[in-house]
Amino acid sequence: MNTKTLERLYNNPHEKNIDGNFQFILFGGTGDLAHNKIMPAFYNLVEKDILPQHFTLLATGRRYSSKKEYLDAIYDSLNSKKKEVDNRVWQVLSDNIEYFELNFKDDNDFMKLKKYFADQSKNNKIYNRIFYMATAPEFFGEIAEKLKKFDLLNVGFEDNDSKLVIEKPFGHDLKSAEKLNNTLTNIFQEKNIYRIDHYLGKEMIQNIMVIRLSNPIFRSLWNTGEIDNIQIYINESEGVKDRGKYYDDAGVIKDMFQNHMLQILSLITMEEPDDLSSKSISTRKVEVLKELSKIDIESIDEHIVRGQYIFNKYGDDEIKAYQDEKNIPDDSETATFIALKLFLDNERWNDVPIYLKSGKRLKKKEAGIAVEFNHDFHNSYSENSEVQSNLLKIMIQPDEGVSLRFNTRKPGSNNKIVPVEMEFCHSAHQLFNSPENYEGLIHDMIEGDKTLFTSWEEVYYSWKFIDKFQTKCNNEDLKLYKYPALSKGPEAADELLKNDDRIWWD
Amino acid sequence: MNTKTLERLYNNPHEKNIDGNFQFILFGGTGDLAHNKIMPAFYNLVEKDILPQHFTLLATGRRYSSKKEYLDAIYDSLNSKKKEVDNRVWQVLSDNIEYFELNFKDDNDFMKLKKYFADQSKNNKIYNRIFYMATAPEFFGEIAEKLKKFDLLNVGFEDNDSKLVIEKPFGHDLKSAEKLNNTLTNIFQEKNIYRIDHYLGKEMIQNIMVIRLSNPIFRSLWNTGEIDNIQIYINESEGVKDRGKYYDDAGVIKDMFQNHMLQILSLITMEEPDDLSSKSISTRKVEVLKELSKIDIESIDEHIVRGQYIFNKYGDDEIKAYQDEKNIPDDSETATFIALKLFLDNERWNDVPIYLKSGKRLKKKEAGIAVEFNHDFHNSYSENSEVQSNLLKIMIQPDEGVSLRFNTRKPGSNNKIVPVEMEFCHSAHQLFNSPENYEGLIHDMIEGDKTLFTSWEEVYYSWKFIDKFQTKCNNEDLKLYKYPALSKGPEAADELLKNDDRIWWD
Repeated sequence: MNTKTLERLYNNPHEKNIDGNFQFILFGGTGDLAHNKIMPAFYNLVEKDILPQHFTLLATGRRYSSKKEYLDAIYDSLNSKKKEVDNRVWQVLSDNIEYFELNFKDDNDFMKLKKYFADQSKNNKIYNRIFYMATAPEFFGEIAEKLKKFDLLNVGFEDNDSKLVIEKPFGHDLKSAEKLNNTLTNIFQEKNIYRIDHYLGKEMIQNIMVIRLSNPIFRSLWNTGEIDNIQIYINESEGVKDRGKYYDDAGVIKDMFQNHMLQILSLITMEEPDDLSSKSISTRKVEVLKELSKIDIESIDEHIVRGQYIFNKYGDDEIKAYQDEKNIPDDSETATFIALKLFLDNERWNDVPIYLKSGKRLKKKEAGIAVEFNHDFHNSYSENSEVQSNLLKIMIQPDEGVSLRFNTRKPGSNNKIVPVEMEFCHSAHQLFNSPENYEGLIHDMIEGDKTLFTSWEEVYYSWKFIDKFQTKCNNEDLKLYKYPALSKGPEAADELLKNDDRIWWD
Repeated sequence: MNTKTLERLYNNPHEKNIDGNFQFILFGGTGDLAHNKIMPAFYNLVEKDILPQHFTLLATGRRYSSKKEYLDAIYDSLNSKKKEVDNRVWQVLSDNIEYFELNFKDDNDFMKLKKYFADQSKNNKIYNRIFYMATAPEFFGEIAEKLKKFDLLNVGFEDNDSKLVIEKPFGHDLKSAEKLNNTLTNIFQEKNIYRIDHYLGKEMIQNIMVIRLSNPIFRSLWNTGEIDNIQIYINESEGVKDRGKYYDDAGVIKDMFQNHMLQILSLITMEEPDDLSSKSISTRKVEVLKELSKIDIESIDEHIVRGQYIFNKYGDDEIKAYQDEKNIPDDSETATFIALKLFLDNERWNDVPIYLKSGKRLKKKEAGIAVEFNHDFHNSYSENSEVQSNLLKIMIQPDEGVSLRFNTRKPGSNNKIVPVEMEFCHSAHQLFNSPENYEGLIHDMIEGDKTLFTSWEEVYYSWKFIDKFQTKCNNEDLKLYKYPALSKGPEAADELLKNDDRIWWD
């Protein structure tokens, strides 16, 4: 985040944080993302008094025909999420919301929007514009092109300095991502394009760098000599729900690996950035992703475990097989689970296996990082079965925290060992409430801080790796293991580590 | 401790732990140590069913004239310590206690004791003998010589394989220690001499090696490159009580530094032992103490802070000055507090200051070790005032535990840092009750495990250092700072670290 701290503002709620007024134009303003993430985030930002006096949240969509209808719908969905909507907060928020009925297939609607901007301009109500794409991804390019075609970007301004916010996915492979990127960068400057990976907004993901850089002990230990292996896991318990159409094309590899998993991987393994600027950090992340994109995929085919969930009974509940979910073909071979092992061929990580795992319909919703340190115990302890490896865990969700495991003497024993876990829990440790991811992200896009957004280069090299990986899986007919819904996934994923004399730490 | 674990026996209380029968001859059987430490420890060992079927605890002394009187006194003192004395336990314990009226100035009494042994021998009730010196230290040599003179050691045995247990202090300077040692080793074999330093029996002192050797992360970090400084402190809140006569000669330097402080220092800083045998460990400890004894004491005179407590009011209590305590001369210049900084001139600890501090009548009773890691923060954090150094603390008493401090992101903040302490508390963490120190020590002396006892070489080099130190203080009239009773000690001790831009971590 930027130089002004959210935190200070939480402590001094009457101090304004964001100085410049702005206009937020939401495409897909009536959709799930708007209801579930964006509006609640704005509500919280208003509640904490972080927004400037003047801002407009211009929601566009087709579903409602009046502002009143729209506000009622938003109010209802806020009400269903909050214990109670504070009327004072709602008053401020709703005063700043405008609803603009717009079908983005209809050129006329864009003309109307342009007129709306022009009217604002006449009334000196021009603010910096942030165009937020909260629609289905296939429309991102189309909408951007219409913004250009109908010259909506410059209304009231000399230069087009408008920002564009893009939700994931950014393309569905390298080629489509490049095409989309070409379209967007023809219209917006790269510096004004904010590609959201909402994982980057998570508290513990932002903590990775703090842990690595502000602790000399971890800085010293952060290399192949000291670390035995690294594990990153995002286990989901949900199925594909009503995203079947998107998901069956994407699979877990595009849904989770191309973005969140690779972003976490790069933050954990990158070289230290020169400073904390988004540019310096991105440079280091790109180095890792570039490295990944060079991996000889042939060399890791034995290190890939693909899985798909099948029917299971869980208590009284019958859990559908993936192939029986809505919009999923009966014979779909899409992987809903992938575990894999890979290496980074550089000085720091030479010989350190990195294990990645993510899947849907797993037993426990849990995301985290485990850094297992080497096994250089003193010879008097190396054969001791009670001794366990030192383990640093960064828990991302649902628990947020850090734990470190080390061996200590079992009190009163004859030098028996007991491994203990020292834990600092962020979510339990209520310094103050952790903000919603989207609050932080929205705050940063308004303020112009790109640290928590992915650069084009990052996207490019991520896709380069994922494309190779995907091609490999498609061409070679890699085995697809079936695993019962709400189980811990295919046995083969455990075997992958067992073969290396290791276990998963999730 | 030995191959058989106390712990297993706590879990299976009906399995005997110590196989060989033994006879424990207690000189000073009616004294404080017997009442407060030794008998309660035996009570606990009986309660946990760790002792063999046949043992004798032969208490000698002058105060009582019959076994009944003695048992009544012991029962009363146990009763005042325990919530309730278990009659079954007491029955077993008291059945095995014998009382032998003995004045160790009286040769006749030793003749009687010899006859007592001879009678036992006739009745085939000969067990391995452990002579335990729980008397005032000036009598250790005298008693041992009488055991030899009246030939008490061989009664019933071909060889003298009896053990000797010596409480501290072992001499009052190098010369007297050497003299005592010559006397004792003329009579007992070095392998059979057990010099008690009851600090070595403490849970967390025994844990030092486990922490250092069974945790690769700490092994890697245990050197000058990674550690900024080491602190060892034993703060006592009590005054000298009725030990004035002893204490005014000893002072804190002989009472705490010569033994406990230097033992802790050597365990923390020694090279890793080849294995966990008492011999290997002692070898490493001796290396450190030898190093210490070579320190040019002239080079550290500015690093010594001597103190003595003076009168203070604490609430409604008036706390006496040291000079007003019983048996302390009004003009005593004895230091009841010492803080000092020193360096070990070896590869591992080159340039790492080691700060030692101990005193009486300090605000808080607290003993522990703090290992402060270096300050190699990433440049983005090195000027950040919120960032604190990584700190490993080993808490010895009254709390027992380990804590590690590291920096983490303040949840919801703009990369603000908050140092958090992860703590594993041994005393709170009731795996099972931590045994009394003396239980473990008595267990080990019966079993013949010398790990928790100090060897002659350790004593020798400790005295060599302390003698030099003491001579320095005496000759040069080093300033004696007065500090109010129950304060944190002289300001000068804080200055000592402040000059180095450091602070005490107790």
